[in-house]
Amino acid sequence: MKPKLNDVAQLAGVSVTTVSRVINNHGYLSQQTKDKVFAAMHELHYQPNNMARSLQGKNTQLIGVIFSDIRNPFFGELVSRIEKLLFAKNYKVILCNSADDPQKERDYLQMLMANQVDGIIAGAHNLGIEEYQQYGLPIISFDRYLSDNIPIVSSDNYHGGYLAAQALHQAGAKDIAIFSGKNQPGSPTNGRLEGYKDYLKEKNLISHVHELPFELSPALKTMEIKSILKQAHYDGIFCSDDLNAMLTISVARQLNISVPEDLKVVGYDGTEIIRNYSPELTTIEQPLADISTLLVSLLLQRVADANCDLEKEYVLPVKLVKGITA
Amino acid sequence: MKPKLNDVAQLAGVSVTTVSRVINNHGYLSQQTKDKVFAAMHELHYQPNNMARSLQGKNTQLIGVIFSDIRNPFFGELVSRIEKLLFAKNYKVILCNSADDPQKERDYLQMLMANQVDGIIAGAHNLGIEEYQQYGLPIISFDRYLSDNIPIVSSDNYHGGYLAAQALHQAGAKDIAIFSGKNQPGSPTNGRLEGYKDYLKEKNLISHVHELPFELSPALKTMEIKSILKQAHYDGIFCSDDLNAMLTISVARQLNISVPEDLKVVGYDGTEIIRNYSPELTTIEQPLADISTLLVSLLLQRVADANCDLEKEYVLPVKLVKGITA
Repeated sequence: MKPKLNDVAQLAGVSVTTVSRVINNHGYLSQQTKDKVFAAMHELHYQPNNMARSLQGKNTQLIGVIFSDIRNPFFGELVSRIEKLLFAKNYKVILCNSADDPQKERDYLQMLMANQVDGIIAGAHNLGIEEYQQYGLPIISFDRYLSDNIPIVSSDNYHGGYLAAQALHQAGAKDIAIFSGKNQPGSPTNGRLEGYKDYLKEKNLISHVHELPFELSPALKTMEIKSILKQAHYDGIFCSDDLNAMLTISVARQLNISVPEDLKVVGYDGTEIIRNYSPELTTIEQPLADISTLLVSLLLQRVADANCDLEKEYVLPVKLVKGITA
Repeated sequence: MKPKLNDVAQLAGVSVTTVSRVINNHGYLSQQTKDKVFAAMHELHYQPNNMARSLQGKNTQLIGVIFSDIRNPFFGELVSRIEKLLFAKNYKVILCNSADDPQKERDYLQMLMANQVDGIIAGAHNLGIEEYQQYGLPIISFDRYLSDNIPIVSSDNYHGGYLAAQALHQAGAKDIAIFSGKNQPGSPTNGRLEGYKDYLKEKNLISHVHELPFELSPALKTMEIKSILKQAHYDGIFCSDDLNAMLTISVARQLNISVPEDLKVVGYDGTEIIRNYSPELTTIEQPLADISTLLVSLLLQRVADANCDLEKEYVLPVKLVKGITA
């Protein structure tokens, strides 16, 4: 027999009204209450809003899209493309900027689950959020391990790191550092670091790894980069995103280090905005059109058939875009 | 008596199933059918989904946010801020990139109206869309006239244009052009052009207006800018957005025109990403934090009370951010 609102209320030890308020995210509710209700819903496999949903037809035509922040041009372009593709298929996007805040991401996920989306595309930066495993909704992940049954789409991070190191080396650099993000176990983006290291090892060069955590402000990153460039005299730097590459070039100019003569720089991402407005930057281009097409197509396959067979991982090729910085 | 689904179907001359499919945006429907159904809904003041809505509680906690494209960093930052503010108030954002396509914007609007959002923040570039007047939903507009009862939030475009011309002039420029967007009647952004013109008139300087339509690709804009810079020997250019300013500086470099020695450039918008990653650009900063706070606060006032008294226009101050390009 299908579980009812009342069953959830009983198991959670709250009133039916409270369960309804949690489901509709209406009024003030403590995190503790929410957690209790969601745990009970999960235990009973309760599907909220079935009634409202069936009144409206089979699907809600809403897709939750969770990325860290669309202010970053990479996520701006990715979300813009996803939205366009979904619109063409009659879906609308609920936008979630998780801001690299696990609690915000968790809140969003609960709101999305309760508020009847047909599926989720998730590419935020907080690894290991258990909630992704708890519910039966179709989910596709970008560049991030969430759980065994959630397919990951990513571009070839390893080859990208390898190509970047190779470009710097072939441009004449011998003392090549990487400014990477924080390396988190299980994150496909770690491949960039590994590809970089492997190329240097092949050429008997020493690797130098500096972490510039994603969440540092540009001012703090600038300070950090300045201090690194003053102490170490690298002639090549691979930045694992284009914004860090822009900062590195700008700091180099301040320190009268000529790019590319004294220091060669390669970025990562290659968004339209970078290629159009900073074409001087040599970078590794992720295939954003293909990534977004694949994310949407896999998700809609899962929406149509929750048990359809998908690969665990889909890896798309990257390419070097030559500017003048390396 | 409240109109029923059946009344809408009769007036539109279609079946109840078709009306339901239009409301739920489900399955293939011709634009003609949609238009007929929406016209009938409008004529009868039919509020779709009242039943589903009341099942879920009073509000849907969803807000539609329509801007041309979040790939533009200005809209990326604005939408990111709006989303954050609305999240804190327990609302989620349905994202609509209208891509400057009036038909896409119209489709979105109809989908939003039918799919039970509590309100809309609209700042797309297609003026004169009648649909905004047709429904009773709370709407707040950014930088754009929609209809008499829809409040407009904007920053002080006139003063921004004046400040930009002044900055170029005070830096030594005398032959000062403007690269503006397409000027559309009723658009508050025209103020930038007027402020620029008035400053030049005060100083007995001649204005030179070049339109670079927003929807031109960067490659075509680059060609256009190159042809302008080759023919006319301006020593100052006010670009009515920062991306055009970046292109102008890049074209000037290609033509061996030194910035700021031979050509001074001032941009417009001053997003975080420009201030952080291209701090050399002198620009007019729009107060994005205040703009988004005001948009959200006015909208939620209207959501709480559809008849609450609001001003027709709210104008926020801008400021000059000095880089080295002027």
